[in-house]
Amino acid sequence: MLERYAVYRQAVDEVLTNLSLLQSGSGELVTCASGTTPLEGEVPEPLKSAMVYSLLLPGKRIRPVLLLASYALLREDWQEALPFAAAVEMIHTYSLIHDDLPAMDDDDYRRGKPANHRVFGENIAILAGDGLLNMAYETMLSAPVCVKKPVQALAAIKVIAEKAGVRGMIAGQTLDVKLEGSMPQGELVAYIHRHKTADLITAPVLAGLLLADARDQQLRCGQRYGESLGLAFQMVDDLLDLTGDAQAMGKHTGMDAVRGKMTWPAVVGIEQTRRDAELAVRDAVEALECFGSSGEFLQVLAQETLVRVK
Amino acid sequence: MLERYAVYRQAVDEVLTNLSLLQSGSGELVTCASGTTPLEGEVPEPLKSAMVYSLLLPGKRIRPVLLLASYALLREDWQEALPFAAAVEMIHTYSLIHDDLPAMDDDDYRRGKPANHRVFGENIAILAGDGLLNMAYETMLSAPVCVKKPVQALAAIKVIAEKAGVRGMIAGQTLDVKLEGSMPQGELVAYIHRHKTADLITAPVLAGLLLADARDQQLRCGQRYGESLGLAFQMVDDLLDLTGDAQAMGKHTGMDAVRGKMTWPAVVGIEQTRRDAELAVRDAVEALECFGSSGEFLQVLAQETLVRVK
Repeated sequence: MLERYAVYRQAVDEVLTNLSLLQSGSGELVTCASGTTPLEGEVPEPLKSAMVYSLLLPGKRIRPVLLLASYALLREDWQEALPFAAAVEMIHTYSLIHDDLPAMDDDDYRRGKPANHRVFGENIAILAGDGLLNMAYETMLSAPVCVKKPVQALAAIKVIAEKAGVRGMIAGQTLDVKLEGSMPQGELVAYIHRHKTADLITAPVLAGLLLADARDQQLRCGQRYGESLGLAFQMVDDLLDLTGDAQAMGKHTGMDAVRGKMTWPAVVGIEQTRRDAELAVRDAVEALECFGSSGEFLQVLAQETLVRVK
Repeated sequence: MLERYAVYRQAVDEVLTNLSLLQSGSGELVTCASGTTPLEGEVPEPLKSAMVYSLLLPGKRIRPVLLLASYALLREDWQEALPFAAAVEMIHTYSLIHDDLPAMDDDDYRRGKPANHRVFGENIAILAGDGLLNMAYETMLSAPVCVKKPVQALAAIKVIAEKAGVRGMIAGQTLDVKLEGSMPQGELVAYIHRHKTADLITAPVLAGLLLADARDQQLRCGQRYGESLGLAFQMVDDLLDLTGDAQAMGKHTGMDAVRGKMTWPAVVGIEQTRRDAELAVRDAVEALECFGSSGEFLQVLAQETLVRVK
């Protein structure tokens, strides 16, 4: 189990480290501080460094792993899906950079390191976020699978665009920032969790399945798995913010309460949140039964979510 | 000539006004201030209003018109290309919202109205920009042409992603903000113009041609047309900032000099900029000769660019 996660994760990290867009052709850092004109066809500094900085911060790579593992439910050649896996990580990373900005959550730390804008300035952090979102699409559109299977590729890109978009992740972010300090309400917290977090868990599952030519019924199973896992994920995150250790988390803890964020523990309490997360994981595991024994890896992966709060 | 521009422009405005994503299903404004949970499948407030606000500010719609007219060089059914035309306007609009942010150009006015963040706050302006960029892809990926001609659609989306991306428009924006206050240099100004402005003029031309199944040689003509028109466009913009009337421009003028922006007049002077803009327009007109008499509309359109600074 852990071995397979490590294999996927290493493959993702290799792709992210070697992205041709973020390589300097000459190996030299082209800085514009010196007044040198950037080379055509390369990403200019300091934009490139800012994008690389956040993209390569140590992370679990859970979203890209989900995409590869979902593809692997139906097909062996999961390497075909790697550009899409990398793209989902880019979208996740852009959302974190923009979330951390002073006008948003105003976070100074992320994954144990200074937030992007603390290193590169707010203007470059805004552009680096924009750049990563756009590069996610560039990366998917340049994938070999777009030539081999254009219809499946279009379907996968579309589901990612929908889940990352203004009825998906960005809808959740909107409520998250607008409702700071409001009285926590179950329905609103559920809405925020469903979109801010679960949509970007469901997206890679569905994209992996679509690339692998899944049938409608399989897509429905994947949808249910992603939604439930996503909810569990956010509940665990909320619990860790309340009870976790700042060092282990790589960011300040207790910030949700300070900011008056809508969280699940704020509505139903810590114990009930733990129970609800367990229920959500159970539902995710059940959803995958339609894939038989090949679903086992993703089932174990869902169960692992709870380990950090047990 | 003007009639045809008006036809394209009206079609674009209709699409932008009636975007299903930005319609409220119930006709009611779902506000989250009241604590009401937004309806699933709709864009929540105030995100929706912020996106609509900037997207529907009065504008020339030059980029979408270029896309439709380029498609029409080769095919009659230019309405097929409308979702792509709308998408290019969304990308343009998102870039303006983010450019106006306090951490970027810190502009209070845009097209004669308060900038997005002045109305909706910085956090929503950031998310509205992100949302419009992502919605551009959602819109293209939902276009009927993706089903009818997936290969052409993929090629068109890809060229837009490349030109809007970190080696395209965002590369230009990066140099534009980083080089504020530096000594103006011809090469750097050319780099900024080529990417910040010309890439998003070339993108719709190439996308229109790709959707219409253009041959390689036709794409080369389109590329040259777009690049030259884009340069002329930015030179005229720089001139208007120096010599134009704030009321007519809908924003403060003279701001480039105040900010120490890299502009063409700052490098070669006003008279030479005017001559260079004329040369660029002449090159754009020449580039379209390969389309024979059907290129006339786009040739006249290029010449019109100069009218404002004559």
